[in-house]
Amino acid sequence: MAGVNGVEEALRQELAAKQAAVDQQADAVRELKSRSGVSPAEVDAAVEALKALKVEHGGLIKQLQAAVGSSADGGVSKEEFRQAVVNTLERRLFYTPSFKIYGGVAGLYDYGPNGCAIKTNVLSFWRQHFVLEENMLEVDCPCVTPEVVLQASGHVDKFTDLMVKDEKTGTCHRADHLLKDFCKEKLEKDLTLPPEKVAELKHVIAVLDDLSSEELGAKIKEYGITAPDTKNSLSDPYPFNLMFETSIGPTGLLHGYMRPETAQGIFVNFRDLYYYNGNKLPFAAAQIGQAFRNEISPRQGLLRVREFTLAEVEHFVDPQDKSHPKFSEVAQLEFLMFPKEDQLTGQSAKIMALGKAVSQGTVNNETLGYFIGRVFLFLTQLGIHKDRLRFRQHLPNEMAHYAADCWDAEIECSFGWIECVGIADRSAYDLRAHTEKSGINLVAHEKFSEPREVEKLVITPSKKELGLAFKANQKMVVQALEAMKEAEALEMKAALESKGEVEFQVCTLGKAVTINKNMVSVNIEKKKEHQREFTPSVIEPSFGIGRIIYCLYEHSFYTRSSKTENEQLNVFSFSPLVAPKKCTVLPLVKNDAFDGVAKTISRSLTRAGISNIIDITGTSIGKRYARTDEIGVPFAVTVDSTTSVTVRERDSRQQIRVNLDEVSSLVKDLTDGLTTWADVMWKYPAHTATSAED
Amino acid sequence: MAGVNGVEEALRQELAAKQAAVDQQADAVRELKSRSGVSPAEVDAAVEALKALKVEHGGLIKQLQAAVGSSADGGVSKEEFRQAVVNTLERRLFYTPSFKIYGGVAGLYDYGPNGCAIKTNVLSFWRQHFVLEENMLEVDCPCVTPEVVLQASGHVDKFTDLMVKDEKTGTCHRADHLLKDFCKEKLEKDLTLPPEKVAELKHVIAVLDDLSSEELGAKIKEYGITAPDTKNSLSDPYPFNLMFETSIGPTGLLHGYMRPETAQGIFVNFRDLYYYNGNKLPFAAAQIGQAFRNEISPRQGLLRVREFTLAEVEHFVDPQDKSHPKFSEVAQLEFLMFPKEDQLTGQSAKIMALGKAVSQGTVNNETLGYFIGRVFLFLTQLGIHKDRLRFRQHLPNEMAHYAADCWDAEIECSFGWIECVGIADRSAYDLRAHTEKSGINLVAHEKFSEPREVEKLVITPSKKELGLAFKANQKMVVQALEAMKEAEALEMKAALESKGEVEFQVCTLGKAVTINKNMVSVNIEKKKEHQREFTPSVIEPSFGIGRIIYCLYEHSFYTRSSKTENEQLNVFSFSPLVAPKKCTVLPLVKNDAFDGVAKTISRSLTRAGISNIIDITGTSIGKRYARTDEIGVPFAVTVDSTTSVTVRERDSRQQIRVNLDEVSSLVKDLTDGLTTWADVMWKYPAHTATSAED
Repeated sequence: MAGVNGVEEALRQELAAKQAAVDQQADAVRELKSRSGVSPAEVDAAVEALKALKVEHGGLIKQLQAAVGSSADGGVSKEEFRQAVVNTLERRLFYTPSFKIYGGVAGLYDYGPNGCAIKTNVLSFWRQHFVLEENMLEVDCPCVTPEVVLQASGHVDKFTDLMVKDEKTGTCHRADHLLKDFCKEKLEKDLTLPPEKVAELKHVIAVLDDLSSEELGAKIKEYGITAPDTKNSLSDPYPFNLMFETSIGPTGLLHGYMRPETAQGIFVNFRDLYYYNGNKLPFAAAQIGQAFRNEISPRQGLLRVREFTLAEVEHFVDPQDKSHPKFSEVAQLEFLMFPKEDQLTGQSAKIMALGKAVSQGTVNNETLGYFIGRVFLFLTQLGIHKDRLRFRQHLPNEMAHYAADCWDAEIECSFGWIECVGIADRSAYDLRAHTEKSGINLVAHEKFSEPREVEKLVITPSKKELGLAFKANQKMVVQALEAMKEAEALEMKAALESKGEVEFQVCTLGKAVTINKNMVSVNIEKKKEHQREFTPSVIEPSFGIGRIIYCLYEHSFYTRSSKTENEQLNVFSFSPLVAPKKCTVLPLVKNDAFDGVAKTISRSLTRAGISNIIDITGTSIGKRYARTDEIGVPFAVTVDSTTSVTVRERDSRQQIRVNLDEVSSLVKDLTDGLTTWADVMWKYPAHTATSAED
Repeated sequence: MAGVNGVEEALRQELAAKQAAVDQQADAVRELKSRSGVSPAEVDAAVEALKALKVEHGGLIKQLQAAVGSSADGGVSKEEFRQAVVNTLERRLFYTPSFKIYGGVAGLYDYGPNGCAIKTNVLSFWRQHFVLEENMLEVDCPCVTPEVVLQASGHVDKFTDLMVKDEKTGTCHRADHLLKDFCKEKLEKDLTLPPEKVAELKHVIAVLDDLSSEELGAKIKEYGITAPDTKNSLSDPYPFNLMFETSIGPTGLLHGYMRPETAQGIFVNFRDLYYYNGNKLPFAAAQIGQAFRNEISPRQGLLRVREFTLAEVEHFVDPQDKSHPKFSEVAQLEFLMFPKEDQLTGQSAKIMALGKAVSQGTVNNETLGYFIGRVFLFLTQLGIHKDRLRFRQHLPNEMAHYAADCWDAEIECSFGWIECVGIADRSAYDLRAHTEKSGINLVAHEKFSEPREVEKLVITPSKKELGLAFKANQKMVVQALEAMKEAEALEMKAALESKGEVEFQVCTLGKAVTINKNMVSVNIEKKKEHQREFTPSVIEPSFGIGRIIYCLYEHSFYTRSSKTENEQLNVFSFSPLVAPKKCTVLPLVKNDAFDGVAKTISRSLTRAGISNIIDITGTSIGKRYARTDEIGVPFAVTVDSTTSVTVRERDSRQQIRVNLDEVSSLVKDLTDGLTTWADVMWKYPAHTATSAED
């Protein structure tokens, strides 16, 4: 980042210098023109020089705009790309704003047929890749959650964003977003800012998450930030809890919330799950389900929504042993990692081997490392490009105080690098919090193969002697003696042995009393222990399914020219694993015989569990291919005879000829990954489409 | 039902007569004993006769109790059976009360690992059986729903239950439940009720759903019903809306609810989905998701809960053509049907052929019939017993006024016949309601292959003449003329032709005016129409997934004696389709070689997508079989050598011997339904377990 900042800073300085040169030359031209007796050639030359300076000045502006990431080339094309993706997604019903006929609700979206099929495929792969592969205990808990659970987890107190209100209209805004927007716009639009101001604005953006309510309010006042659209003045920032509130049952007395994450449902079940697992660690529980966040002002489309599907794993492990038996299976993986040191020293993410990252301590432990590796495999197997996927470690100021280490899988899309999976070592925080609140001990035990001998401090007050000495105060003295910490007790023991008596402060009495050696005995005794009790650590990979799917859309989208017509065609290059339909069946031309064959093929594909569509509309075959490419169907079966058909692969647009009775099992093998297109091209005769066909 | 009622009535009469005989004989005994000079033999004989009468009296009580379905044999065993099922389900974490460590919340349950796996299997079969097979458009809409949507659907006004409050503690109860409980208990416990009273109580139970708030309140007062547990007096009944309320966004101004059903999300998307389907009918949309009902006082365990998974289909069809192209595929099915006529005339459900039920008009139309057939196939393929599944038609008083016909798939379990799937023809109600509320026209069009000539009434007021005659009132007269219905206009036309003028009432003027034949022309004109516009009908099969799963548990549960020990073992006879795990892998005895083989087999099963557990605890093989039978795992692979293993089928407990390299694909074929256990028994050598093994 220092690199980028350096470029930007140099450009800003150069621009300022160039601006000065332009101003100076403009003065010179004016002076020449006002002076009499100057030859027109001389004036022309000065004007040309001014023009040249202005061209250079314009060039610098463009460079600087590109460097700060606004408009111009980079910016506009990102916007345009996103618009093309989103248009296709909405038009082909991958998703639509919810309740559209009533004007919609910000932050709520429907998955239409294509989006819904992709979501089902992604979740089913998630189950195969995590739950089944690791024999996780999958659970399914309600969204409606009583307040006590979310008090214990800290959400009732702390799950807030700072909000400001338009003082006239009452419209609410996120305070940090307004401040960030202001700073970014200033940096992008005002290219003549003095360097101190540039540095200041950048600093504000960097520390945004750490600003208190008062600091945010002060900055908003200082910069004179007003409400977007109305330009009215804004209230002071105040915290707004992001949970949807409700009340459970008819009395209105049991307060509840729609869960903001699925994890708590697992934590409160720890005792049962641990028992179910034969009282053995480690084990993992998993849950897929809806979660809810009542965002103040949702934006960024599918990336910031008020209701979303989470898939979470809670892996419970002995804090003294976070090794993982299958770590060696992922240790060789290499991918973009962005440790906190590199972020703080302004470097960029670089490719590292996971095994090395763990062995050198960059990643805290093997179990955390194992899940980072599994997440990498999951995302790339879905179709996320590995050069636009990085694992970024949380900086100390981002990380919850209890977390031991935390990495986000960030995927780059047109909105920037987006956190899609969080992989955190939450230590014992959650189980301890619920133990404290519920009074139910959420702990694990390690049984020793042989009992271990431990030394234990034993304090034995003599109630008789103390009673004689302190009468009614005896009980408080006994309690104070029993409550002594080891060091204090050993000190007393030594003092009693050497001096026979000692002064002892009893807080509950508010004074010191004299204890003699008949009143108490302090001894170190050897005891046998058969097990140790501890609160397990939790390693939590948490997947924002909607965000992953949106990024997958951007990574899969491309356009290509039509072979026959002068237009750009949209294609989603989904793998068969995620594609909403695996195959389209189309008669080459509309006639009853071909339609019949197409229906038979479609039916046999359905019986084999291959989702497919049949397109017997009269449209040209080229248009119908474009239509199926646009929703990312990987294969098309074209019926051009009643004995054999062609199979077409979406991205290469290559076709082969296959006998009717083989086509269904061939498509099944292709979509199940049992054979590849390259193999198929080798085995079956190629079919050359006429230009009208594609 | 009349049959059953007849038996019960006869028994009540017989019991009353027997009671009288007992009383009479007791008097006789007393009289004999008090009289002097009676021989002891005579007294003894009279006492014996009294005893015999008491025995007969006791027998009648038992018969009557059985007839009214309370306690005694039938009753208690149902309770005991349920308790055995529920104990197993909770102990083996099929489900548990949610938030148990905080005391739980009534009506909220978690699916544990076994229950969650079964739910996933049921939903995935549902998708295969409905969505994929019928090419339905599956969508996924949010749970959070703005108020306007549920105002249009009628839920804000009408989705209520009547509630009474304990006047001292404030505890809430469902008014109809209290009244029903009172009547049932009276009928079951008080066996000496006079026949009029019996008839009255039964009538109250029958019309419970039709009672108004006032009628319910009056009955509660009349019977002196008090609060359960406290016996405090109760408030008057008042309606309580069953939706969980919340507010969307930070201002608190946008009121919302957690959806009570998933259907509305589909209705509001009708326009997009119809367009997506190429503007063609019929088509179906489907949705699986959470729904929420804030029940007043949930009971019956998993059957009445506050949050549950619904799977709903909305099939849109032209109201003029409700035929179904695939109806012939289900027409031959025969199963228990319970049409409304049979219910009203006191008959019981009987087996009918679906084709006949549709052709004779018992089921309103083919599309409704088709879905009834598909639901039957779905439920029985899951493992619901077909003799404990019936399709019951709604009685006129149960059905929404707009519905054309409605059938519930009811499954019999220990709680009685439980509605698990509703299959309703909702006509055009929902689309019309949202059209009206949103102003967006949710309609379909039928394009005519050739334009059709239709006669249309054309009313043409002469604005000039009317202006001259009525000045400022002209506009209102014009509007009134244009608004005439066909009959009125034709009457005016005739009157104008015969009399030249006519008196015409203009409501907006509040008086009649005189219209002459220059002021308006009324004509029937022929016009060509190219399409017709209409609101589609909706056929809705709606599945309560949790209820289906609970009934499946009861239908699958049985106990059998242990072969070696004197105890009852629990078994769930789940098919491989629904079983939470498909296979258990167990070394016969604990040793490293067998453990290694077991792990290899488990791994290759996982790779093949077969969920499995490996049990290498040192417990006896018999105990381990019992453990896997109890969660319904259909197959067990037992490692008793390093070259071949045995495969055991859960219900028959038969075992075969298979080579190590074949076992994984054999288990896959068995669980995928590609081969049957009978085939396998034929092909592979049987293995005879020693008694210690099973």
